[in-house]
Amino acid sequence: MELNFHFDFISPYAYLGWTQIHALAERHGATVRPRPLLFAGLLNHHGQKGPAEIPAKRIWVFKDTLRRARLLGVPLSPPPSHPFNPLLALRATLAAPAEAQRALVDALFAATWGDAEVRGVDRPEAVRAAAEEAGLDPDALLAQAQAPEIKAALRHGTERAIEAGVFGVPTVGVKDELFWGFDAFDLLERHLSGEDPLGPDMLDRFRDVPASANR
Amino acid sequence: MELNFHFDFISPYAYLGWTQIHALAERHGATVRPRPLLFAGLLNHHGQKGPAEIPAKRIWVFKDTLRRARLLGVPLSPPPSHPFNPLLALRATLAAPAEAQRALVDALFAATWGDAEVRGVDRPEAVRAAAEEAGLDPDALLAQAQAPEIKAALRHGTERAIEAGVFGVPTVGVKDELFWGFDAFDLLERHLSGEDPLGPDMLDRFRDVPASANR
Repeated sequence: MELNFHFDFISPYAYLGWTQIHALAERHGATVRPRPLLFAGLLNHHGQKGPAEIPAKRIWVFKDTLRRARLLGVPLSPPPSHPFNPLLALRATLAAPAEAQRALVDALFAATWGDAEVRGVDRPEAVRAAAEEAGLDPDALLAQAQAPEIKAALRHGTERAIEAGVFGVPTVGVKDELFWGFDAFDLLERHLSGEDPLGPDMLDRFRDVPASANR
Repeated sequence: MELNFHFDFISPYAYLGWTQIHALAERHGATVRPRPLLFAGLLNHHGQKGPAEIPAKRIWVFKDTLRRARLLGVPLSPPPSHPFNPLLALRATLAAPAEAQRALVDALFAATWGDAEVRGVDRPEAVRAAAEEAGLDPDALLAQAQAPEIKAALRHGTERAIEAGVFGVPTVGVKDELFWGFDAFDLLERHLSGEDPLGPDMLDRFRDVPASANR
């Protein structure tokens, strides 16, 4: 079983999710496939603001993730800037060989939200340090991250995720089933255990509820 | 200690939260104060779409709340329509005497998401049935719900909530601290127990993180 982990480094919930998804996958004999996407592309597609663009929600997200990180025993530090441009880090992830992606994403998340020495993955020097941490050649990775086919792969990956129903990050896809949010990991785990409380026909009555008011 | 429960009947998460908040409050010797607000007013203020206005998110919300309701052993049925106009139900809540508000909100939520016989609280007959269920005079309540001072109270309540930092429902306010979302009830409970993992100065380093990219 493959877990598609849709994420952007911009999201502290994606970071928290990434710190937990591998142990979760191992408990169920599943593998994790990182699926980088541009969160801003999701927001643009849906005409939606991100949490960081609503001041009260921005504060809530920081408080909530600080609490969750403390409970999980995971470091959470303020990034040098936020929101920041995540394109280089996302493209570097796609440019890395499959077997090195996990280590690179670990290092890039640590450089964004964690306790890496060189922070701020919108800067080439932080991506370079993360590449070294992951055992990759930094020069080769940075050059490859700028290649047109890698830029296109991120665009297409974001589009495909939107088509599959992804509207936020992190989202974990298990075949056609999507679990949105770090706080849905308990439901993801039940689903993988064959104990999903959502029966196959339960949603049917909800699909066709008509709207009687629109703004 | 008073828990301010900010809600709109439109939200199935507010419904789930309402079914749990009283037991949670009792465990901590707290009381629950219902704070009806117009969720659409929050969305308008922030220029944001509601979950029901993004097709993939609408389906996710129904799936997620169906799973959560099943795990809680709480009935969750599709409302006759959604989104619907919640103004009458919200105003009726404000028009009810304080001591009857809990029973009325119970009945209105049951008529929206639960297993009440008369469903659909955008219709006067459903609000009337809920009033009877709560031991109130339906005619008097419906007349009072249309009074200008009640309409103004809902408007002002929504504005005050926005000023206090409320951006979604349900939100539970404990003094100045806000807990957004049914999935934050575990954190609310820790806060009330004096075991909040968020230390007093932990947020400080996050407040002043500058943006380095904007859409």
